[in-house]
Amino acid sequence: MTSVPTAAPSYSAERQHAVAQALRAVLPAGCVLAALEDTKPYECDGLSAYRQVPMVVALPQDEAQVLAVLAVCRELAVPIVPRGAGTGLSGGAMPIADGVVLSTAKLNRIVRLDATSRTAVVQPGVRNLAISEAAAPYGLYYAPDPSSQIACTIGGNVAENSGGVHCLKYGLTVHNVLRVRVATIEGDIIELGSEAPDAPGLDLLSVFIGSEGMLGIVTEVTVKLVPKPACARVIMASFGDVVTAGNAVAHVIAAGIIPAGLEMMDQTSVRMVEPFVKAGYDQDAAAILLCEADGTFDEVEDEIARMTAVLQAAGAGAIAVSTSEAERLRFWSGRKNAFPAAGRISPDYYCMDGTIPRKNLAQVLTGIAQMEVKYGLRCANVFHAGDGNLHPLILFDANQPDELQRAEAFGAEILALCVAVGGTITGEHGVGIEKIDSMCVQFQPAELAAFFAVKGAFDPVALLNPDKAIPTLHRCAEFGRMRVTGGVLPHAGLPRF
Amino acid sequence: MTSVPTAAPSYSAERQHAVAQALRAVLPAGCVLAALEDTKPYECDGLSAYRQVPMVVALPQDEAQVLAVLAVCRELAVPIVPRGAGTGLSGGAMPIADGVVLSTAKLNRIVRLDATSRTAVVQPGVRNLAISEAAAPYGLYYAPDPSSQIACTIGGNVAENSGGVHCLKYGLTVHNVLRVRVATIEGDIIELGSEAPDAPGLDLLSVFIGSEGMLGIVTEVTVKLVPKPACARVIMASFGDVVTAGNAVAHVIAAGIIPAGLEMMDQTSVRMVEPFVKAGYDQDAAAILLCEADGTFDEVEDEIARMTAVLQAAGAGAIAVSTSEAERLRFWSGRKNAFPAAGRISPDYYCMDGTIPRKNLAQVLTGIAQMEVKYGLRCANVFHAGDGNLHPLILFDANQPDELQRAEAFGAEILALCVAVGGTITGEHGVGIEKIDSMCVQFQPAELAAFFAVKGAFDPVALLNPDKAIPTLHRCAEFGRMRVTGGVLPHAGLPRF
Repeated sequence: MTSVPTAAPSYSAERQHAVAQALRAVLPAGCVLAALEDTKPYECDGLSAYRQVPMVVALPQDEAQVLAVLAVCRELAVPIVPRGAGTGLSGGAMPIADGVVLSTAKLNRIVRLDATSRTAVVQPGVRNLAISEAAAPYGLYYAPDPSSQIACTIGGNVAENSGGVHCLKYGLTVHNVLRVRVATIEGDIIELGSEAPDAPGLDLLSVFIGSEGMLGIVTEVTVKLVPKPACARVIMASFGDVVTAGNAVAHVIAAGIIPAGLEMMDQTSVRMVEPFVKAGYDQDAAAILLCEADGTFDEVEDEIARMTAVLQAAGAGAIAVSTSEAERLRFWSGRKNAFPAAGRISPDYYCMDGTIPRKNLAQVLTGIAQMEVKYGLRCANVFHAGDGNLHPLILFDANQPDELQRAEAFGAEILALCVAVGGTITGEHGVGIEKIDSMCVQFQPAELAAFFAVKGAFDPVALLNPDKAIPTLHRCAEFGRMRVTGGVLPHAGLPRF
Repeated sequence: MTSVPTAAPSYSAERQHAVAQALRAVLPAGCVLAALEDTKPYECDGLSAYRQVPMVVALPQDEAQVLAVLAVCRELAVPIVPRGAGTGLSGGAMPIADGVVLSTAKLNRIVRLDATSRTAVVQPGVRNLAISEAAAPYGLYYAPDPSSQIACTIGGNVAENSGGVHCLKYGLTVHNVLRVRVATIEGDIIELGSEAPDAPGLDLLSVFIGSEGMLGIVTEVTVKLVPKPACARVIMASFGDVVTAGNAVAHVIAAGIIPAGLEMMDQTSVRMVEPFVKAGYDQDAAAILLCEADGTFDEVEDEIARMTAVLQAAGAGAIAVSTSEAERLRFWSGRKNAFPAAGRISPDYYCMDGTIPRKNLAQVLTGIAQMEVKYGLRCANVFHAGDGNLHPLILFDANQPDELQRAEAFGAEILALCVAVGGTITGEHGVGIEKIDSMCVQFQPAELAAFFAVKGAFDPVALLNPDKAIPTLHRCAEFGRMRVTGGVLPHAGLPRF
């Protein structure tokens, strides 16, 4: 999306000085930034349309310093926005004008790696890919692989419950994190979760994962490591229309196969990517599917054969199977570069992230095609199809009158359609500030009240990433949309299941 | 365990009359029980050592009536104990003397079953096995299979996050429930979770599952159904000593195999069961393992071959593989009947439920053997070995002076050892009233405070199953045991990992 001007600071120079001084008293030299040239790089995350320079940035180096930063902020009533690598796409790490950004950048140590129990204990600022690199000598890796994995941090992954192209088989962050250590706003260190399959007491680990920085600051994460599969191959299948492709996805899953990855791209996406990446995609196809199998050599041969048969029976045209690791990576390269490719063919794009039941894939694609006409904008569709997780990329030009507004309305209508067919407004990018109004479509007042009550249980002073992820009822009332339980949304007329 | 006398009621006849009358005003005839002969059957659950007749039992027939019962209890400040089938083993459904038992027995309808999306929507009083029976015509079933599955309800499974012998591969309740509808003590109906892999907002579904009736009353559960495997076979392997058997479990998992079931029984268990069940177990073995493979015919052949090789290399003696479905069920029959068999050879037994890292299996077994000497009591060990979930059965005779006390001390020491090696005090049976003191060993004050804060977010009036599952700090202080973070427990001298 396009950029909007930075808002003027809403605090006095005295206030900024007082907060910075209090933080400097508890952090080492160089770990508190207040000058504009230093704080400016923190003004946005991956949702660059929303920008705000923070009052102060704090970079604690250990757990005790995290607690000290929280104590200062509590004492001075300063809101805190936690930040990993800032690669998030929903504005969860966008600063607050009179707030502190607590960066985990200096908490970047791999504490220990136990190849026998297949776990690693890492600090929150460790990059996702760095965990797999450290585990590689043992034949292990950390499974969730967001597209940003070269840069994004495990702390940010915990905040957003990040997924990736392999999460159909290997799960989201919540399925791959065993335990977190958390510094609370009240000054305690608590450990949530355990190495056991089930832990006694309330499952606060799951509620913490995906809580977008609203409940506490992660100081240590214990992740599960899994054995690197001996072999992986990917099928690239072409389809003459998107409905057939969407149904083919449902057929693969219905056959009892859980592919390591099951991704779909429509013709707009393929034609956007292919000239740039040269992945070998069929530009004449209305849609292509990428279906990966991994495991032992025999398992992969067997699964590739079964998937090929299902895809052919489901109406696939051309089918190609990777015959080398280099070819496998080339097939994936187009999918992984879809977002950058969108930037090449359109001045701006708006990446959506909704989830729907797999059986409704074809129906939602048809709906999006109708919206393209209605809003006069093109939309490239890229999906984690196996999960039913859509990433429609709405292409627009912010310099044309009205196009940003039309893109936003287009996006909101896609999300409302996702909810109407029984899906959700976000698959893996989080709510942040971007989708906070869509939460009013997804949830009832009593459900939002339950979220706030749990938020209040962890953060009674409401200083941790306020005004993100959960809309107030007042905000929903202003937005003018409340979900009708058991009913249907005005625009859709579709059953909820 | 043995029974203790029922405590005298702590309420007046007027109070009981007032509560019963208020409930009768909102429920159909026959749905409110107050006479002792009617309420007596509700005095305990599967933990029969703890008994308490409730003041009143309410049996609502639909969601609106559940809300009405909660409104009456809130109005009159009556504590509520939710109850499914009462098969729980930790006293989670034990009544409160001046409280209401809210039974879900009449909420027993399968609302709908969708074979395409592989989901079923059921009321909480539906029996676990009834879901699989309803799904059987479609080749589907509900995976979690607690030993009590013929009787226990899905609502109780949600409350306790129940597992079963197949949860190593198929997960616990939390992995197989997509959504719950909940009646809150504040009078709202909220829906937690969704059919999507990830839902926006806080993950309150996970926190609700396993919350032992403390957060709300389930009125509807959406479960995942999975395809019935075409084929299943089980290996029965004998071992000359328990340490070798324990290490063999670790080797199977380390080989990258996830068996459909991986269970272990020691010689005491085998000799206890075999004369009764005639499962064909090797009574000369120090321990036996049962390792099941399921899937397509080829997958099962392949996995059985790989498991056999790993078990042989790990020191197994005799190995038998089931050659028919009847034989497979016979091999399992001994394991499934371990608890009743204990009742045949010992006047009383105390079933423990702790979880440890798999690599510590051999070490914990050695520790339990030492405790048998120390406490002068026998212990039969039955495990969900693949999960590291232990079910030691401490055999005793409550009519002998001191034996109950020794059994309880023995049990507490087993749980403390589980925590000391990095495990937990419960695997799948919950905390209830039985393990509430052991929670003081497992958690720090700040962690217990976080549990209470979340409990308070859902139940600010503290009427839902009070005094279960989470001990107050005061209670822990009286119990005299607080976990030392990063340190070691007094009795163990073992590292936490």
